[in-house]
Amino acid sequence: MPHRAPGSPGHSRQQFLSGKPIRYYRPTGSADIRRLIDEGFQAFNAGRLSEACAIFADKMLAPENNTTIGVTVAGAMTPAGVGGCLIELMHRGLIDFMISTGANLYHDLHYALNFTLRRGSPFVDDRELYEDGVIRIYDVLFPADVLLQTDAYIRDFIVRAGFDEPMSTSEFHYRLGLDLLQRSPGCEEHSVVACAAHDGVPIYTSSPGDSSIGMNIAYHELMNGSRFMIDPNKDVNEVCAIVLAGQQNGCVILGGGSPKNFYLQAQPTLWEVYGIPKGGNDYFIQITTDQVVWGGLSGATPSEAVSWGKVNPGVLPDTVVAYVDSTIAFPLFCEYAVGSPNNRRVRKELLSQRERLVANLVREAKAAEEKKKGVGTVD
Amino acid sequence: MPHRAPGSPGHSRQQFLSGKPIRYYRPTGSADIRRLIDEGFQAFNAGRLSEACAIFADKMLAPENNTTIGVTVAGAMTPAGVGGCLIELMHRGLIDFMISTGANLYHDLHYALNFTLRRGSPFVDDRELYEDGVIRIYDVLFPADVLLQTDAYIRDFIVRAGFDEPMSTSEFHYRLGLDLLQRSPGCEEHSVVACAAHDGVPIYTSSPGDSSIGMNIAYHELMNGSRFMIDPNKDVNEVCAIVLAGQQNGCVILGGGSPKNFYLQAQPTLWEVYGIPKGGNDYFIQITTDQVVWGGLSGATPSEAVSWGKVNPGVLPDTVVAYVDSTIAFPLFCEYAVGSPNNRRVRKELLSQRERLVANLVREAKAAEEKKKGVGTVD
Amino acid sequence: MPHRAPGSPGHSRQQFLSGKPIRYYRPTGSADIRRLIDEGFQAFNAGRLSEACAIFADKMLAPENNTTIGVTVAGAMTPAGVGGCLIELMHRGLIDFMISTGANLYHDLHYALNFTLRRGSPFVDDRELYEDGVIRIYDVLFPADVLLQTDAYIRDFIVRAGFDEPMSTSEFHYRLGLDLLQRSPGCEEHSVVACAAHDGVPIYTSSPGDSSIGMNIAYHELMNGSRFMIDPNKDVNEVCAIVLAGQQNGCVILGGGSPKNFYLQAQPTLWEVYGIPKGGNDYFIQITTDQVVWGGLSGATPSEAVSWGKVNPGVLPDTVVAYVDSTIAFPLFCEYAVGSPNNRRVRKELLSQRERLVANLVREAKAAEEKKKGVGTVD
Amino acid sequence: MPHRAPGSPGHSRQQFLSGKPIRYYRPTGSADIRRLIDEGFQAFNAGRLSEACAIFADKMLAPENNTTIGVTVAGAMTPAGVGGCLIELMHRGLIDFMISTGANLYHDLHYALNFTLRRGSPFVDDRELYEDGVIRIYDVLFPADVLLQTDAYIRDFIVRAGFDEPMSTSEFHYRLGLDLLQRSPGCEEHSVVACAAHDGVPIYTSSPGDSSIGMNIAYHELMNGSRFMIDPNKDVNEVCAIVLAGQQNGCVILGGGSPKNFYLQAQPTLWEVYGIPKGGNDYFIQITTDQVVWGGLSGATPSEAVSWGKVNPGVLPDTVVAYVDSTIAFPLFCEYAVGSPNNRRVRKELLSQRERLVANLVREAKAAEEKKKGVGTVD
Repeated sequence: MPHRAPGSPGHSRQQFLSGKPIRYYRPTGSADIRRLIDEGFQAFNAGRLSEACAIFADKMLAPENNTTIGVTVAGAMTPAGVGGCLIELMHRGLIDFMISTGANLYHDLHYALNFTLRRGSPFVDDRELYEDGVIRIYDVLFPADVLLQTDAYIRDFIVRAGFDEPMSTSEFHYRLGLDLLQRSPGCEEHSVVACAAHDGVPIYTSSPGDSSIGMNIAYHELMNGSRFMIDPNKDVNEVCAIVLAGQQNGCVILGGGSPKNFYLQAQPTLWEVYGIPKGGNDYFIQITTDQVVWGGLSGATPSEAVSWGKVNPGVLPDTVVAYVDSTIAFPLFCEYAVGSPNNRRVRKELLSQRERLVANLVREAKAAEEKKKGVGTVD
Repeated sequence: MPHRAPGSPGHSRQQFLSGKPIRYYRPTGSADIRRLIDEGFQAFNAGRLSEACAIFADKMLAPENNTTIGVTVAGAMTPAGVGGCLIELMHRGLIDFMISTGANLYHDLHYALNFTLRRGSPFVDDRELYEDGVIRIYDVLFPADVLLQTDAYIRDFIVRAGFDEPMSTSEFHYRLGLDLLQRSPGCEEHSVVACAAHDGVPIYTSSPGDSSIGMNIAYHELMNGSRFMIDPNKDVNEVCAIVLAGQQNGCVILGGGSPKNFYLQAQPTLWEVYGIPKGGNDYFIQITTDQVVWGGLSGATPSEAVSWGKVNPGVLPDTVVAYVDSTIAFPLFCEYAVGSPNNRRVRKELLSQRERLVANLVREAKAAEEKKKGVGTVD
Repeated sequence: MPHRAPGSPGHSRQQFLSGKPIRYYRPTGSADIRRLIDEGFQAFNAGRLSEACAIFADKMLAPENNTTIGVTVAGAMTPAGVGGCLIELMHRGLIDFMISTGANLYHDLHYALNFTLRRGSPFVDDRELYEDGVIRIYDVLFPADVLLQTDAYIRDFIVRAGFDEPMSTSEFHYRLGLDLLQRSPGCEEHSVVACAAHDGVPIYTSSPGDSSIGMNIAYHELMNGSRFMIDPNKDVNEVCAIVLAGQQNGCVILGGGSPKNFYLQAQPTLWEVYGIPKGGNDYFIQITTDQVVWGGLSGATPSEAVSWGKVNPGVLPDTVVAYVDSTIAFPLFCEYAVGSPNNRRVRKELLSQRERLVANLVREAKAAEEKKKGVGTVD
Repeated sequence: MPHRAPGSPGHSRQQFLSGKPIRYYRPTGSADIRRLIDEGFQAFNAGRLSEACAIFADKMLAPENNTTIGVTVAGAMTPAGVGGCLIELMHRGLIDFMISTGANLYHDLHYALNFTLRRGSPFVDDRELYEDGVIRIYDVLFPADVLLQTDAYIRDFIVRAGFDEPMSTSEFHYRLGLDLLQRSPGCEEHSVVACAAHDGVPIYTSSPGDSSIGMNIAYHELMNGSRFMIDPNKDVNEVCAIVLAGQQNGCVILGGGSPKNFYLQAQPTLWEVYGIPKGGNDYFIQITTDQVVWGGLSGATPSEAVSWGKVNPGVLPDTVVAYVDSTIAFPLFCEYAVGSPNNRRVRKELLSQRERLVANLVREAKAAEEKKKGVGTVD
């Protein structure tokens, strides 16, 4: 499909699906792009994006800081083809854990299962799409059958896996990734979920019921009487434990939404609930199109986060928000990081550390409780 | 605190907390406001808000349509004092169920527990706030102690209630509301959670681990070895069952985010996963400041939802998005509804119907499965 | 036309023009609306709008401050029916001069000339509109003939008026307003341009060539060899002179754009160019949907304006920006003002003071120049 | 100044001005960036930007289309260092005329006059800046003296040039550019105004009084009794004449605002006012952060422009709006164009054609008038 055609009438299904396939673009560390970002992106959001690149590549990735880096993913990033950036970062050890909407993981499965999403237009007639069985995510188009078959795969996987009790999302996504890797060896190169399993990166979902993955798990409970469910408590505690263990902590927030809040609540959980005075994030990078003036958490600034203890008051210079569509900014950001001297770290493999880290959280929480009892309690 | 003072130096805690207390404003059905909306709001987003009011008051609330109405709440609405609007609608039977971020429910508890949030400024120094123990949500300010005490109440409630197994959020919020009502009789007038329990309105949270409520439940599992957890499957299935049972379905979406998606996925769950051809929403009202051009679900139009079967293709005239801060638009919207001839409906009391409706969902899903087996399966 | 119908096919011209006529809504000072703003609009942009109302009604309009109040108008406010608010404020002496895009004044003429603009939908097919001769401003629809006849009126007026030399826009709009008043006595009640002439309020346009009014003046020069033109210098100097003469100065900025900048540059002109240390604005109210993070002047904050000397550093508490569509916020704002104790001021009738004020500007500029020469010059 | 430091106290002027100088970055046609745009920018605004690049490089610049290309510039692009992109396009003949806010041209003069603007932060205290004599444009900082000296240069130039009658902005900017070239030979490489004079590209300003340039011209009239002024009529007619003469017409709109409208009104002027049925634009590219839903012209879509005859109804596939900060998108866009096969065109040198083109406009307008008289008039 050539360039956008608002209101162009009379498309057939074949025409809707004639756009180029969307592929996961993999950043290669272009020196040209680094030069553009350093020298051409000087002010306004170009300046902010340039700052974000420098903070990430020069500080967060600096070996001596050993920063535990979480990335949060909201907005339909995998349908838009941004998954390759996440894969490249995971392979290189540049991100340690991920919090994503379920939708991004669900649509990532299409790539793992070799279905094709295509470039399209946001200006098509949705009633024609509906009649033709074509699904639209803004300007990304694909047959409804892709949903049905991905759903069938998920349900089949759950049955095969024999899950029958509560589980964290990190464990579920890990097991799902292993299944994909077994089914299609090498698919860690074109699936975020498979890659994360391959590279030991835990993936959390803050809204586990809120996606087609969650829908199919719910089916299993209702129709098969399974006791398999996502236990949100495990997710909360694992993320807290990971953050607690970080020498330094930093985040790259794509969009905002529930994943942003879920990442940022780790520090308040530590001090508010567990009584552990960990302190806030050392680095905070957000790429978003939301705005602070609407008052919501998606658009809230690193500064506001200081009052909650989510960000260290002393590090505001190492926080930055770039207001720009992640589909543009994140590939540029990743090109910069991949081309930087700090472009590879030993992977933290947090997936296999979870148990140990949670045990440590319990230990510290109990110690804090004891200490508090010793001095009398305030609340 | 008088009008906003960007950068004004040297506030003390007392000064930060000198603003007027935030109260839940209750709409009374002003005829003046109805006239302004009908006659003065003619174009642009004023026009859209006027349309939204008319669709809600004249169509969604029309007795003959018997619309099952879900409201979704994202953005910090209760800290901003918008809870009174939700209470008024629940009392009058004008909304039947709610999907909210956990944060809105958590901060609603402050009102129920008689803590005070205050009007402030978004231009204060967060490092001073942090040192003074003052928490900021954009321009809403309150002492950090409010968090600690609300947390302590939640943990205490969970222990007292003796919960020890998985539960839907609707059940958890119901039980929490009953506890508040018992603790402070009459608090259904100034707490959304209490009011919902009082009026039989189920409240769901799509991201159960993602709020201070979720944090405290997670504490209970980790520290007390409890088996109490939120079961997201139950939430998914209950919402599906409610939507399936609706004679007509319609929604009022405040903001967007995960609650919006959670509401809208009910119909796709029915056809994609359960094989039940229910059809999409008949009415769709969204009040948001997100934009369609960012591609995410928060800003996605009713039109895009048609391709997914979330909105009936035939009803696009009964869908509307008004781009405006909900803190302004929703009180106006509620004044209009409360002042309309259809300003009271018999409450559906869906809380007590959940079991029956889910049983019906199982029945229909099994029938659909049988039918599909009979004709051979596609996926 | 009932509620919005995205993509509904097959409209005819008659259907496109079946919506309700847009009328200039006149605020009446509703006590209900004042109560909503005072008590229900507590935080986020509702809080900002509430602050804006209080600053305007309680401070800017306070008799003792004798504030010279400029209003700037960008965005298609008159097509959206907001003109009645401006008329009410002018009649009551609550605004003293206006800077508007040419388009707002041009489309105001349709009302004066008794043409009808209608409520419509932003989701119509523009190619159908084009073929049917229907013009669209977002969701406002009217026949193309309205343009042609308004243009013909303007050209005819210019010829009749016998203009043949450069003129300020304030003079041109005044003469145009007088012509309208003569042509349709009483039209000061439904035309901003006529009302301003009637009430002695000068109207400036910062981009005089940039509207259908400017297009028709250009025609006159090109085709009739006229020497009539807008002299932007006169506009710059008159606005400077008005601001210089203000005991206190304050503005109400609707939207942003060129009118905002034109208003705000008065103080820099005084100090940068004329060497007169007047000081910046005492009050600054903006209602906009633009955002600070894009870096442009439309979204720039009162705080940024301080560095330019456009706003007094000491008065930041009396500045406020409410992020909301003016079609919603401005009628609410005007209801509040009209219902306030300070709802009427003696009109300043600046139209007839212009010559005197400019003479005073010359005098002060010369004095400043003399003084500077006396002490040696820097530039 | 290192990365942004919200609220960091106690800056001195030296610290404020310690950031890197902003330079005009010149795109070089990077193959890496072209690959990223072609292969990595697949959906959402990345997809739109990719489309915009392809439409510009493959269609608008295709030799056989001989497109007359206007670029409009709003937002503080030259302070942000984007001027080098415009210079590169002018040198290569890729843009034929420009409509800019006065502010962009005024701040371009700082570069021509060798003053230095610096990278800074949007989070500094404006009262400190004011006291330290530092001017801020979002995150761009420079001494107030830069304003005073640039102003002095402009006033001096006007006196030296001996202007004493009305003039188009294209003529004024041309003469200003020549003066800069004479003063600093070679400055066409770091000044947009100088480059345009050098390359024969007319620059128009739709709001001539609305900038420091306009302020200083106004000074000259008031204090020196000069009859020099900008004649907006000439601008309107020249732009109309240029558009009328285009074999194909296309635009690249940065931001929106008054420059956008001024460009787009050319076609309506032709048919509404001059009776010449020219037809609308063949290509329409906009890079903006404004949104359609606010109803204003800045955010209005190419589709809406169809109803006004501003865009050819048949060419909607060749129109595109990318929602992204121009400081990010425009350098990428220019890299793409400069690296494309069509990266050089013979310059149209419209500056020297203006008289001929306007004469042709008069001829066609008179012919249209005669023809209309022949058949009887409608209005």
